[in-house]
Amino acid sequence: MTQNSIKILAVEIGTRARNAYAILANSSKETRDNALIFMAQAIFDNKDAILSANKIDYENAKKDGLSDAMLDRLMLDEKRLMGVAEALKSIAAQPDQNFEVIETYNRPNGLKIDKVRIPLGVIGIIYESRPNVTADAGGLCLRGGNAAVLRGGKEAFLTSTEIANALRAGLAKAGLPEDCVQFVPTTDRDFVGEMLRGLNGAIDLIIPRGGKTLVARVLDEAKVPVLAHLEGMCHTYIHQDADEAKAIAIVLNAKMRRTGICGATETLLIDEKIAAKILPKIATALNEAGCELRGDEKARAICPMNIANEEDWSTEYLAPILAIKIVDNLEDAINHIGKYGSHHTDAIITENEEAARIFSYRVDSAIVMHNASTQFADGGEFGFGGEIGIGTGRLHARGPVGAQGLTTYKYIVHGTGQTRP
Amino acid sequence: MTQNSIKILAVEIGTRARNAYAILANSSKETRDNALIFMAQAIFDNKDAILSANKIDYENAKKDGLSDAMLDRLMLDEKRLMGVAEALKSIAAQPDQNFEVIETYNRPNGLKIDKVRIPLGVIGIIYESRPNVTADAGGLCLRGGNAAVLRGGKEAFLTSTEIANALRAGLAKAGLPEDCVQFVPTTDRDFVGEMLRGLNGAIDLIIPRGGKTLVARVLDEAKVPVLAHLEGMCHTYIHQDADEAKAIAIVLNAKMRRTGICGATETLLIDEKIAAKILPKIATALNEAGCELRGDEKARAICPMNIANEEDWSTEYLAPILAIKIVDNLEDAINHIGKYGSHHTDAIITENEEAARIFSYRVDSAIVMHNASTQFADGGEFGFGGEIGIGTGRLHARGPVGAQGLTTYKYIVHGTGQTRP
Repeated sequence: MTQNSIKILAVEIGTRARNAYAILANSSKETRDNALIFMAQAIFDNKDAILSANKIDYENAKKDGLSDAMLDRLMLDEKRLMGVAEALKSIAAQPDQNFEVIETYNRPNGLKIDKVRIPLGVIGIIYESRPNVTADAGGLCLRGGNAAVLRGGKEAFLTSTEIANALRAGLAKAGLPEDCVQFVPTTDRDFVGEMLRGLNGAIDLIIPRGGKTLVARVLDEAKVPVLAHLEGMCHTYIHQDADEAKAIAIVLNAKMRRTGICGATETLLIDEKIAAKILPKIATALNEAGCELRGDEKARAICPMNIANEEDWSTEYLAPILAIKIVDNLEDAINHIGKYGSHHTDAIITENEEAARIFSYRVDSAIVMHNASTQFADGGEFGFGGEIGIGTGRLHARGPVGAQGLTTYKYIVHGTGQTRP
Repeated sequence: MTQNSIKILAVEIGTRARNAYAILANSSKETRDNALIFMAQAIFDNKDAILSANKIDYENAKKDGLSDAMLDRLMLDEKRLMGVAEALKSIAAQPDQNFEVIETYNRPNGLKIDKVRIPLGVIGIIYESRPNVTADAGGLCLRGGNAAVLRGGKEAFLTSTEIANALRAGLAKAGLPEDCVQFVPTTDRDFVGEMLRGLNGAIDLIIPRGGKTLVARVLDEAKVPVLAHLEGMCHTYIHQDADEAKAIAIVLNAKMRRTGICGATETLLIDEKIAAKILPKIATALNEAGCELRGDEKARAICPMNIANEEDWSTEYLAPILAIKIVDNLEDAINHIGKYGSHHTDAIITENEEAARIFSYRVDSAIVMHNASTQFADGGEFGFGGEIGIGTGRLHARGPVGAQGLTTYKYIVHGTGQTRP
């Protein structure tokens, strides 16, 4: 596309989104509930069109030499597609919190001030090749009361277009504007630039979902607020009072359940008072599962393993590799996480409640786990019916962000004629 | 100062702030309560030093030809200084919400997820010549559990330095690091640039307090998140079912109580069904108070007044001038505010609850008032013990921002050995 036609498209999509949002913002809870249910239904009703589109995307991607892992992310079959529809149903089952009163302040002069939850507005999502993101993101934005502008990767372009069409059919059936969900009809990278500049004032928030390169570009270039995490440099710390069986099971799960997700543990910290006893068992379990271990000197003195260099402590492997460090104590563990962590998810394994409390309070991450796998860092697991992403910034929503994270608030002040002295 | 010494100072102040914050974040509620009370006490104890410094600032500013309004903002006497100390006491009386559990999610697998309030971290405040901001901002940041880096204007430099010294003495007395509050010891404008770049990663949030030029610069240049409002283009709408006496009293107060604050009404909208009756009375009251009126054709057909041009509808006068427009109905009023407003504060005067509800829900501003003066847009009036500013952005804190707005949250997940299937 030419620069000029990109600009025209940007203004058009932005305007459509704002107009749709204005109507959505004044719709009833029942209408929004219906829309989400009809959207799930429409995925089911249009499964042939979606699966046919996916077949073409898949063949093209294969020809282009996409890796098996990428092809697997792209591929939809009937079962996976029903999973997409089910995910929309669980988003529909989340409470609609629009216009709920969060807090009330009664003032001595008789003013009653309600802090009321409202939608954020228009949200732009920039993602890569997973076609299910189209449905998840569209659904979560709508549950929060927002209009969505979805810009998906070229590999899943036809699939995402069909999924978005189904969502739009669901919206129309509920009597809402189809443009509450728009899928950008071009994969031209310049359009991403337009989104990062806010589509002519239309976009309130940008959420990138994808690899580090994409997220870094968005954080660097965006002129509108961004909700994101750059990386998940997650730690699991085995405290001296850990239960051995729990520790082994959790570490194995935290590292190996899925190695490519942001909540996977990348560094294991073990208290030196328990290391000689527990590390050999953990090493055996991880080796059997196909995990490479890289340890500091103390760890290697206990078990044979590769050397961990300074850079290993800050490497998000997203692979079956685990860095292992023996720490002096709780304080040392907290300091290591403070130095190398990414404020995403960190866990302590201990039966000592006081140690767990200190760790939970002092480790400055969006999610801190006690006796649980870091792989629980997920909106679905938190009960949010899905997630639009995980935030590691300090402002607004952090941790797994579901529909509630896609809202803001306003103050409504009820007076009886008060003037300010 | 040289570029290089500015950079060295930036790193030093940033490092001090982060170190102080780390200790503050692990302090007890009681320690933080004490600190605020000791800070208020120290203002009282050091009143001679503060007032002497203020005398020098005032004389210098007078020599430099500062306007009377600016001189008045700068000037402190014993009574005003006691007001500053009292403000700190009311901030101290606000609840310390650090580590309070905001929400809890109990999951079917036994995980208990607490959403817990925590401080934002290190907050940079960039302001102009009001010396009381030094105490207010320092106090509110501390009440939220944050360290503050305060960069005040050159006119009040000596006064603010002395006030900050008093705050630091209060912190030390409570056993907290003095560097929880730092006043930047230079008025070099390049240091503002360093703050907007985050003081080498130390700053979590920047809050500008001052005129539009300052705020616009901060919004444009900042590489860290900013909490701000650019302008307060506030409206008061008199609905057809308004109580006449309330309407007149509220409009007079909303415009004229103080014309230079962001919550002052700048445009009055009157329903045409009530305009002929009420406008002459309002015009008389405003004229007597010394307010210039600028109306559209319909308003001028009812009362003689100057002409309001298109640009008047989007002008924040901050002066005794009021633009007046006769609107067709509620819908017309909402649309006018949508087109020209700044998402700050807008009011409806009506005895019709349904009209008030529609207006409150549809006007997309941080604060919507029903039967009350827009001049109530103030953290003190909301019961927040003061305010660090008013936010009109959509993310994080909006409206008057008190200590709670200067916090964020983390998730603490309590498990018993759960692994993710």
